[in-house]
Parts: sequence; C-alpha cells; structure tokens
Amino acid sequence: MDYQKSKLNKVVRNSQKAAYDKKTIHAILDASEVCHIAFIHEGRAFVQPINFGRENEKIYLHGSLNNRMTNAIIAAKEVCLNVMILDAMKLTRSAYHHSVNYRSVMVFGNVRELTDKEAKLQGLKSIINHFVPNRWEHCRKPTDKELKITRVIEISINTASAKIANSPPDDNEEYRLLNYWAGEIQVKPSYAYPVPDTYMDKNSTIPNHVLDFYHKKNQVD
Amino acid sequence: MDYQKSKLNKVVRNSQKAAYDKKTIHAILDASEVCHIAFIHEGRAFVQPINFGRENEKIYLHGSLNNRMTNAIIAAKEVCLNVMILDAMKLTRSAYHHSVNYRSVMVFGNVRELTDKEAKLQGLKSIINHFVPNRWEHCRKPTDKELKITRVIEISINTASAKIANSPPDDNEEYRLLNYWAGEIQVKPSYAYPVPDTYMDKNSTIPNHVLDFYHKKNQVD
Repeated sequence: MDYQKSKLNKVVRNSQKAAYDKKTIHAILDASEVCHIAFIHEGRAFVQPINFGRENEKIYLHGSLNNRMTNAIIAAKEVCLNVMILDAMKLTRSAYHHSVNYRSVMVFGNVRELTDKEAKLQGLKSIINHFVPNRWEHCRKPTDKELKITRVIEISINTASAKIANSPPDDNEEYRLLNYWAGEIQVKPSYAYPVPDTYMDKNSTIPNHVLDFYHKKNQVD
Repeated sequence: MDYQKSKLNKVVRNSQKAAYDKKTIHAILDASEVCHIAFIHEGRAFVQPINFGRENEKIYLHGSLNNRMTNAIIAAKEVCLNVMILDAMKLTRSAYHHSVNYRSVMVFGNVRELTDKEAKLQGLKSIINHFVPNRWEHCRKPTDKELKITRVIEISINTASAKIANSPPDDNEEYRLLNYWAGEIQVKPSYAYPVPDTYMDKNSTIPNHVLDFYHKKNQVD
C-alpha cells in the first residue's frame, strides 16, 4: 500500500531512489530514536530534533506546555518531519561522486493536541514503546500531575515518501582507472550492553525486554 | 569565545544543558556527517537532511541547480540548521523520566550562493574534507562542467547554541526503590573497515587518510 504522491512528497531529484510504500516508510521511522521537526516561528523556519512514537498512521510527540515548537505546529495544524539514517560513506575517485548510502523519510501530517487523559496515555505509551519495545509494561505510568504538565501531540500521516540509497561507490566509467583510492565505509549505530543505574542491586538480572532490544539493535542485518 | 545569546539561540528549557562556546559547538558540528535544514516553501515549513562542510565560521552546502531547499534559503537569506548526535538511552523506573544523552547544535546563519569559481571550489573542498579529512588532496577535483551544475551555498554563522545531556538515568528520589529495571544503553556510530570498490586492485593498500578516518571514528573516547 503506497502513500499518495502529491506536490508535497513527490521525490524530484534521483527519483529512482524514491519509495512510497507504507511498509518501507514505517520501518525507517521505527528504526530511528529521533526525528527532526520543521516549524515556523515569527516568520522564520526552525528545525528541532525530538523523540517520537508511531502507531499505524499516527506519530506522537510530547513536550512541556507552552513549548515554542509544539505551539507552532499546533497553530499551523500541519507539520513536516524527517528521519534520516546514515548507512555508508562512499568515497569515489572524483570529488563530484562522493556520496552516502542512507534511508530518509519525509512525513507530512495533520497536527492536533491530545487533551483527553486516555488519549494522552496512549500517545505516551507509543513514545515509550518506540524507545524500547514493551517498555511501557515495565515502568511506572505517568501520574495525573505528570500528565497535566505534559503536552502530547498526535500527527496523522497525510502523506510521506522515502529516499533510499543502497548502492556501491560509483565513479563515471572514464574515471575508474584514476589512481585514487575508492571504496565504502559502512556505518551503523552500535548499542552498548545495558548498564543498571546506581540504585539497582548489582546482581539483579537485566529483564528480557531490555535484552531483546539490545540484541535486536546489534543483530547483523 | 561564546556565540552571542539572542532570542533566536537562547536555550529556554533545561538551560543547564546549554552551551554557547564556539569550541564545543564546532566540535559537535564536526562530529556529524549530516545536518538538518529548515526552510519555508509556499508558506509551509520543511526539513531536509544534507551533508555539509565547516571552515571556521562558515558552513557549506551543495546541491543541484534549481533545488527547492537551496532556492528557499537563498531567497530567505538566512537559515536555521540542526545537528543532533545520540549518545545514550536512559531507562528510568518512571515513564516520565525516560530520556537520552545527546549533543545537539542549532545554527542560525546568513545565506549566500557562491558564484566565483575559486570560492565554489573552496566550499566543495570544505564539504569533502568534512566527509573524510584530507580527502580533497586524494581525489579528482571538479571539472568546469561539474562546477557549473553544482550550486554551492555559504552559511555565515550568525549565532548558535548547543544543548548537551550527559548524565546518568535520573528517577525522582521517591521512585528509586520501585521494582523496575533502570539503566543506560550507550549508543555510538560504528564505522566498518574500509572496503575498496570493485575497480580497485584487491591487493592495493588503503591510504593513510582513509585509515586515519577509520581509526579516529572508532577510537574509544
């Protein structure tokens, strides 16, 4: 199932790298802890990183009350956000053809603030479980006071597109015999073994949801 | 030496995490391959990832002619960009206190397109050497034709700020004895050993500038 192509999400440059199918786009969103949000404040464009959750066609953000970014996207009623994952650096003989392998997703969505208690809790659950799957069941839920001072934003994905580069370094044929080194350096995030905080019993076992996360993040693709 | 605090770059939330000194801010910019650029197009805020270079107080971008993002920031004459590096995931007993260690930089700069050939080459050199230090000396420089179809943008840093979280997981005292696992998972990008492309002699040695990059990126901090 594809997101509808529109003027907003259609990839113009290097359109052979474009993908519009929901499965691909959701997988890229779910592989990243952080997205970047664009917003307009006093006539200027700003960008800010933030963690998020996703549940089907909804993305959730949270923040403090009266935050500049959330104020701006609530007022605009819509938002553009990006997730970008770097996969490899490609060094070519020509300066011009240096590039990277990456997975990037642009999302265009409609924004609303959640005010109902149950809806806010569901949004926060999505954010915590995006952080570490099943974590919500293994921590203390927000108190009414914490909920009150937390703003929860729901973004309904309107449309989206991915741009994926996954190819070897590529010099033009005429430059392939130049005497410069060309090749690739793969990049991926490495997640260290979980370390308990200072208030934990040193002999306590690490629970499965944390170990599962660690192993999944470090598995060889 | 600090960047001047203004309405644009002053960190309001968690101001104890803020830094304004140039050395810290430049180091965060230089540690990332990619930045995120905000721009306004037809009244909407967009965000887009792109690689970049830095030389003192200048940041360089490049792209194709007639690109939507570069068109927008040239027209606006100014830009906001962000670099964000995730350092650790912090799991607390309370959903509310889950957070990350990170280094984030916001830059506010003045934008101009470089049109002089020498200036464009200097901008591209900065981008290639930001990608891999000293790479410019070890690859074929752009031809006049390549330069002609490449737009080079210079951003003069007007002001900037960093936000840095580098602390252990932090539950409120009253929740520190709750029976949930709390701890930290450190995250860092891992750079694989450089692999020559298919046109290289298999026995050719990897040059020092590539090995230096590999070792520097993987060194234990």
